[in-house]
Amino acid sequence: MEKKNLIVGQSGGPTAVINSSLYGVVSEGLNHPEEIGHVYGMVNGIEGFLNDTILDFQEALPGEKLEYLKNTPGAYLGSCRYKLPESLEDPVYPKLFKKFEEMNIGWFFYIGGNDSMDTVSKLSRYAAQTGSEIRVIGEPKTIDNDLVHTDHTPGFGSAAKYVASTVREIILDANVYEKKSVTIIEIMGRHAGWLTAASALARKYPGDNPLLIYLPETAFDVEDFLARVEKAFEKNCNVVVCVSEGIHDEKGTFICEYDNSVGTDSFGHKMLAGCGKYLENLVRQRFGVKARSVEFNVSQRCSASMLSATDQQEAVTAGVFGVQAALKGETGKMVSFVRKETADGSYHMECGLEDVNDICNAEKTVPMEWICSGGTDVTKDFIRYARPLIRGHVNVPLGEDGLPVFVYRK
Amino acid sequence: MEKKNLIVGQSGGPTAVINSSLYGVVSEGLNHPEEIGHVYGMVNGIEGFLNDTILDFQEALPGEKLEYLKNTPGAYLGSCRYKLPESLEDPVYPKLFKKFEEMNIGWFFYIGGNDSMDTVSKLSRYAAQTGSEIRVIGEPKTIDNDLVHTDHTPGFGSAAKYVASTVREIILDANVYEKKSVTIIEIMGRHAGWLTAASALARKYPGDNPLLIYLPETAFDVEDFLARVEKAFEKNCNVVVCVSEGIHDEKGTFICEYDNSVGTDSFGHKMLAGCGKYLENLVRQRFGVKARSVEFNVSQRCSASMLSATDQQEAVTAGVFGVQAALKGETGKMVSFVRKETADGSYHMECGLEDVNDICNAEKTVPMEWICSGGTDVTKDFIRYARPLIRGHVNVPLGEDGLPVFVYRK
Repeated sequence: MEKKNLIVGQSGGPTAVINSSLYGVVSEGLNHPEEIGHVYGMVNGIEGFLNDTILDFQEALPGEKLEYLKNTPGAYLGSCRYKLPESLEDPVYPKLFKKFEEMNIGWFFYIGGNDSMDTVSKLSRYAAQTGSEIRVIGEPKTIDNDLVHTDHTPGFGSAAKYVASTVREIILDANVYEKKSVTIIEIMGRHAGWLTAASALARKYPGDNPLLIYLPETAFDVEDFLARVEKAFEKNCNVVVCVSEGIHDEKGTFICEYDNSVGTDSFGHKMLAGCGKYLENLVRQRFGVKARSVEFNVSQRCSASMLSATDQQEAVTAGVFGVQAALKGETGKMVSFVRKETADGSYHMECGLEDVNDICNAEKTVPMEWICSGGTDVTKDFIRYARPLIRGHVNVPLGEDGLPVFVYRK
Repeated sequence: MEKKNLIVGQSGGPTAVINSSLYGVVSEGLNHPEEIGHVYGMVNGIEGFLNDTILDFQEALPGEKLEYLKNTPGAYLGSCRYKLPESLEDPVYPKLFKKFEEMNIGWFFYIGGNDSMDTVSKLSRYAAQTGSEIRVIGEPKTIDNDLVHTDHTPGFGSAAKYVASTVREIILDANVYEKKSVTIIEIMGRHAGWLTAASALARKYPGDNPLLIYLPETAFDVEDFLARVEKAFEKNCNVVVCVSEGIHDEKGTFICEYDNSVGTDSFGHKMLAGCGKYLENLVRQRFGVKARSVEFNVSQRCSASMLSATDQQEAVTAGVFGVQAALKGETGKMVSFVRKETADGSYHMECGLEDVNDICNAEKTVPMEWICSGGTDVTKDFIRYARPLIRGHVNVPLGEDGLPVFVYRK
């Protein structure tokens, strides 16, 4: 059997473990020297590949350097947000496949979310159409946990752990004074509330903060929110509220757009504050209490200090499994996670394969039956689902400079 | 010798290690059963003490529970921002000392920053004036690192590590796309730029981000800033800028106040965005590039995931040292840190004692000779000063729920 080369790329937003999946693909690729020649990386995804920005992993990360890749957040290879044309007649396709042929590529891996699976779908369909033997496999990645046909996605567990842990710390911080206060925490998730729901994992006992949790799956009503905050003050001095960035009213207007018309800076340009900032101001005006808002921002997707060992291990496993599947001849598939509950109810995960065409351009939101208390909380079923995904600590080695050791492209 | 009881309180803003100092005081207090009877805690500082909210540590945190206190961020005892009256003739003083007498208090410890040292000063002066034998000792605590007569303060090292580590992660995150971008990171510090300066520790090689670092010690000029960003684009695709929340112009006007006059919400109230948000918008308008801002907010002072082992150990040591000093008869002192450099240039810290009256109401800012590049960077001397303070990882035990084990007041 003639040796072929493997190429792998990353696409979409970074996560804490997108490089763990990359590590899985690369290390397993290097494990099969009889079948796989070079293991290449596309720098800045398919867009970079079109511009011939490529690296060879044996040169870029020789020996133990590859091990550090596992703990490095971000996207080692760089990313892109390039969408391939809908029509497979477009000249970009023969151009791409000519390059694949020149580089003797037999295996193509793409790590990403929805849009990246769209790339996997188009390339595998074009390969089938033209009789190319290239195998195209998608590796799931998104903190949003919004891919269908998989129990969850790599990246979600660590982001959820960041959310749960940081919300708990902020609750502790909020509790130090005996004066009424409201803290609004704004969490990523425009359409799917998985990550915001993870804030429920921060609770230490029933009735603990966060007292209100709002996902974008239900409509947000400002007056109802204020009434609930007022009610919460009857029993609690410090009220912590978690909201998805994408909360919106019944008509679909985002809450962060409410102050659009008037908020302008000194140049007369609109200043878009998040929904957290908006609600902070609203609460302060209505109740005259101390109010603050915290926007979790990019740290929730790139924090190596809050890696979930479960998430990291699963990300590596997905990478390895994808290579093994491709070697068995699979193509046009995304690696999926299938949850197996053992007899004692403990958590166990197995990898599977799903037709990538069923996955791209679909979105999985939090099921309505897991949302309760009038859209202000999540059920025990959600907790049972999410808890195993954040377990385990990753001891990231520290360097001489006192900070975690990461690897970078030169 | 008649046994006396010890009481300890916390005051001001929380830090990641204020409870480590508390642990040091309490554990050392319990180590001296011949001299010290009960070890009490004031709930919500001196204000809570006046309202008789007190706990006994042997009941509240028996056995190994006390160990968990060391890793718990926030302020276990709760805090206050209560300033004792300037005049020692005020009736609150005899009221306080009558309570001390009723509780047979012989040792009083207060963990906090500037304002807390003011409390220590007043109580010790009142004790001297009235012939009370109570010993009053201050334990330093502030992420701002702005106390005088001490090399640094407990809390700064962990906050600096959070800043350095999170800035590094955000740099990685910013580097994934090949499109010009500016990321503004806003860091705590109204008057002293120590914590913002710590962002320089994030650099991995000369010329790495953050490319611009602005402290409140120098005046900020908006046009000069924009010119420097433009220049940075000549060599860099992604520009990361770190700014103190307290940056201000030559006239002393805070940059965050620049958009005050026009930013209002739908109720017509002023919406105060931070200086990071303001600069983000400015950069986007001027250069038409992708711009975002990240406000570090409370996590920089309450993150247990980024504890510096050095900082935590020193906080404990300061607590222990304070108790030992009080037992030797010291009063009206704050525990200080004295840096000793060993022959091989490695870092070594010893505790000292300073007259608390020299400390309260003074503020230590970053020396001008450590600020360079026209007020946009810090020197190697600062790096040499700060680097040892962030070293060492604390392995915070995880609970069944996958999150760090903390202790709470019931």
